[in-house]
Amino acid sequence: MEDKEISQAVIGRLPRYFRYLGELKDEGVERISSQDLSRLMQVTASQIRQDFNNFGGFGQQGYGYNVEYLYQEIGKILGLDIQHNFIIIGAGNLGRALGNYFNFERRGFIFKGMFDRDPRLLGMDVRGVRVRPMEEMEGFIREHQIDIAVLTIPKTSAVGVAEMLVKNGIRAIWNFAHVDLNVPEGIQVENVHLSDSLMKLSYNINRYMKEQEKRKEDCQR
Amino acid sequence: MEDKEISQAVIGRLPRYFRYLGELKDEGVERISSQDLSRLMQVTASQIRQDFNNFGGFGQQGYGYNVEYLYQEIGKILGLDIQHNFIIIGAGNLGRALGNYFNFERRGFIFKGMFDRDPRLLGMDVRGVRVRPMEEMEGFIREHQIDIAVLTIPKTSAVGVAEMLVKNGIRAIWNFAHVDLNVPEGIQVENVHLSDSLMKLSYNINRYMKEQEKRKEDCQR
Repeated sequence: MEDKEISQAVIGRLPRYFRYLGELKDEGVERISSQDLSRLMQVTASQIRQDFNNFGGFGQQGYGYNVEYLYQEIGKILGLDIQHNFIIIGAGNLGRALGNYFNFERRGFIFKGMFDRDPRLLGMDVRGVRVRPMEEMEGFIREHQIDIAVLTIPKTSAVGVAEMLVKNGIRAIWNFAHVDLNVPEGIQVENVHLSDSLMKLSYNINRYMKEQEKRKEDCQR
Repeated sequence: MEDKEISQAVIGRLPRYFRYLGELKDEGVERISSQDLSRLMQVTASQIRQDFNNFGGFGQQGYGYNVEYLYQEIGKILGLDIQHNFIIIGAGNLGRALGNYFNFERRGFIFKGMFDRDPRLLGMDVRGVRVRPMEEMEGFIREHQIDIAVLTIPKTSAVGVAEMLVKNGIRAIWNFAHVDLNVPEGIQVENVHLSDSLMKLSYNINRYMKEQEKRKEDCQR
């Protein structure tokens, strides 16, 4: 499949399609039109068709889409049919929350190891995985064919750890540290900057409040 | 300030500017040119100027930007000079991780309360905040002027809880539940769908692997 030209914006929307199709499938829905999918997901039907056309279209418009087929195909595009082993670096609350999220396994992400430098956390069990000292990380990555490292450590140590991960052949970093990582080409990074997300929320609250005030003033004039 | 036309894409970039400017400020940097900021943040200088022009430009190009001033102004645009009280609903690992993140306070987000329906978690202390039963939530929101609710509960209960929050006058929901919430106009929602983010990472790993394979094949031809 030719997918070099597909923008990150389209890619960013695929998981949401996958999530909705999974729910439809669980509810026993067999076919859905782009109009119904559009109403459900609150995006335009033309957006849906455009997005799907990047991957060949997935089926005839007149009959709607086959839910199970579409779910499987989008899953394959997302690479969910391939197993990826991951480790979590940082066994604090956030790291443990991610380790305990069993749904990742259903999507092909296998939780293999957990590391921390805090001696008080060593040996702790997170869903069958024991927290190990940082010194064991390099050997572990190679031995267990780890693809993905989840970084839930403070930003001060994240840059150094990321370098070490790259040196040991990791393919991707899911980064929760509040810092942008510079990695060589070919290493995938997906950032989850939680403060950034909260600030965006804050902006939208304030903009709405200002608009309301302005509307009130306009009415009193 | 007229900011009705500003796209969510621009808004989404503001927190990152704010983060970099905060670091520059902490390092004692007083002025920075758009070229230097561009190199540091790995976005084009014209993108930076375009983004800033949405807010009046923030200063002369020849002399560069005043870091402290720019930091303060972007902070104000993001509404960080206004205090927002928040509660967390769901005292599992993720909820506790967010409750323990003290940097939110520095940005004007004040952690006031935490709620869960699991009796084993009730009374637990998270950074000075006691976990309370769900039944106390409605009264608490009004009594403590809560603006923001953080949802770290399973998707099955999220929709019902969101309705209850809206009814009790919440302004915004920071949603970590794996479901899209339908809320009335004027209620701000910011979704953090962690699985979606991991799937995007998975897509990018696989695309890169396929590209590498293709390159290898092309060379062997």
